[in-house]
Amino acid sequence: MHIVRFRDPSGYVRTGELTDSGIEAGNTVYDQGSITLLPPSEPTKIICQAGGYMDHREESGMDDIPERPELFLKTPNCVVGHGDAIELPPGRDVVHFEAEFGIIIGEQCRDVSESDAMDFVAGFTCLNDVSNRDDQEEERNWVRGKAFDASLPMGPVLATPDEVPSDATLELRLNGETKQETTREHMIFSVPELVSEVSELITLEPGDVIASGTPFGPDSLAEGDIVEVEFEGVGILENQVTTRE
Amino acid sequence: MHIVRFRDPSGYVRTGELTDSGIEAGNTVYDQGSITLLPPSEPTKIICQAGGYMDHREESGMDDIPERPELFLKTPNCVVGHGDAIELPPGRDVVHFEAEFGIIIGEQCRDVSESDAMDFVAGFTCLNDVSNRDDQEEERNWVRGKAFDASLPMGPVLATPDEVPSDATLELRLNGETKQETTREHMIFSVPELVSEVSELITLEPGDVIASGTPFGPDSLAEGDIVEVEFEGVGILENQVTTRE
Repeated sequence: MHIVRFRDPSGYVRTGELTDSGIEAGNTVYDQGSITLLPPSEPTKIICQAGGYMDHREESGMDDIPERPELFLKTPNCVVGHGDAIELPPGRDVVHFEAEFGIIIGEQCRDVSESDAMDFVAGFTCLNDVSNRDDQEEERNWVRGKAFDASLPMGPVLATPDEVPSDATLELRLNGETKQETTREHMIFSVPELVSEVSELITLEPGDVIASGTPFGPDSLAEGDIVEVEFEGVGILENQVTTRE
Repeated sequence: MHIVRFRDPSGYVRTGELTDSGIEAGNTVYDQGSITLLPPSEPTKIICQAGGYMDHREESGMDDIPERPELFLKTPNCVVGHGDAIELPPGRDVVHFEAEFGIIIGEQCRDVSESDAMDFVAGFTCLNDVSNRDDQEEERNWVRGKAFDASLPMGPVLATPDEVPSDATLELRLNGETKQETTREHMIFSVPELVSEVSELITLEPGDVIASGTPFGPDSLAEGDIVEVEFEGVGILENQVTTRE
């Protein structure tokens, strides 16, 4: 199933299923052209993995295998949807894209085991963990570098886990050219390992997002760029880069 | 004015004013014994300052004056209220208290100047930035170390800025003994500087909290400890330490 959050023509926020005939919500089928897609969840928190793929660890100067996932945070002001603008923060020179997929939590949980973890996962979505390297390189904790406004495009849908194969491809295209490409099989930690590890000390709420990390190849964004993140089984998240005024 | 969020005897969450006669909300005056105090706001994000006082910088091995505030994040699962338990995270040896005061945002804002900053501040509260040093010392970004459940007691009230003198005293007592003591005058960055700096890249929402940093003297907590944080003009935030089961 592909689940979408959207604003209907009357302005109400609804949840529905994206099917071949349109978006089904209650007794109504909406044409995609008549509604506004919203990010597929409203996370109270976004827990991100750094260095979750070996090829990206190596290009970042880390050639060790971590004992446990390395984490950082983004905040709700980061979230924008499919089709929304990525705003470059003013006065910064180097802002990178980072293709990721997101794990969306379906039910409140704390300290779940790896074997139970998938019971609490509603599904997956595409993410772009936009990163402001100017600040990130100077900060002990990445706040200005990672938690600035409109730095987490998310969407277009929540795909239930059965839609996403265990070797699903993750790809990022910049203005049509492939810049990052990997599969789930290259992750150092699996989805159940990530959910179990994060939930040990942090209660997860429905809609919360775990950003699973980016593979080799993050690179610079410039005004006007079109960025697509495609995760197999989910779809394509597309956003254009603008400059904040 | 001292503003409280509380659950009334019917279970409704209300906002009211704490006065000598009780808690006034609408046409009703509630006796404090009949209601449950809640944290004074529900932040969508909590942006914290590290090393905001020179004496704490020095004890942490930093003797430089920072060019701008050093930031990190806590998450909504951290928030508990006056009288709630501080839960020690399981399997960790060193968990410290950190007395702080919190700046509560009153109105959505982005990129505000220092001179306008106080227009967007609803008031102040007491905070205890409980910190799990076992993980914090190992992490690049402090997530397990700072964002674990019940690690940010907050309250008991939101005091409007006119209630809090510019040289207000901040004090922490552990089982009745004073462990931390400073005044607002010892902050490296002022409240307007913090609000202006944080809001440059991050839109702040009503209820969001900026934790202003801790002075000299954070130390260990143990099961059964009673911790009081008192900020002049706000009141006393009291919490007891328990161990998570």
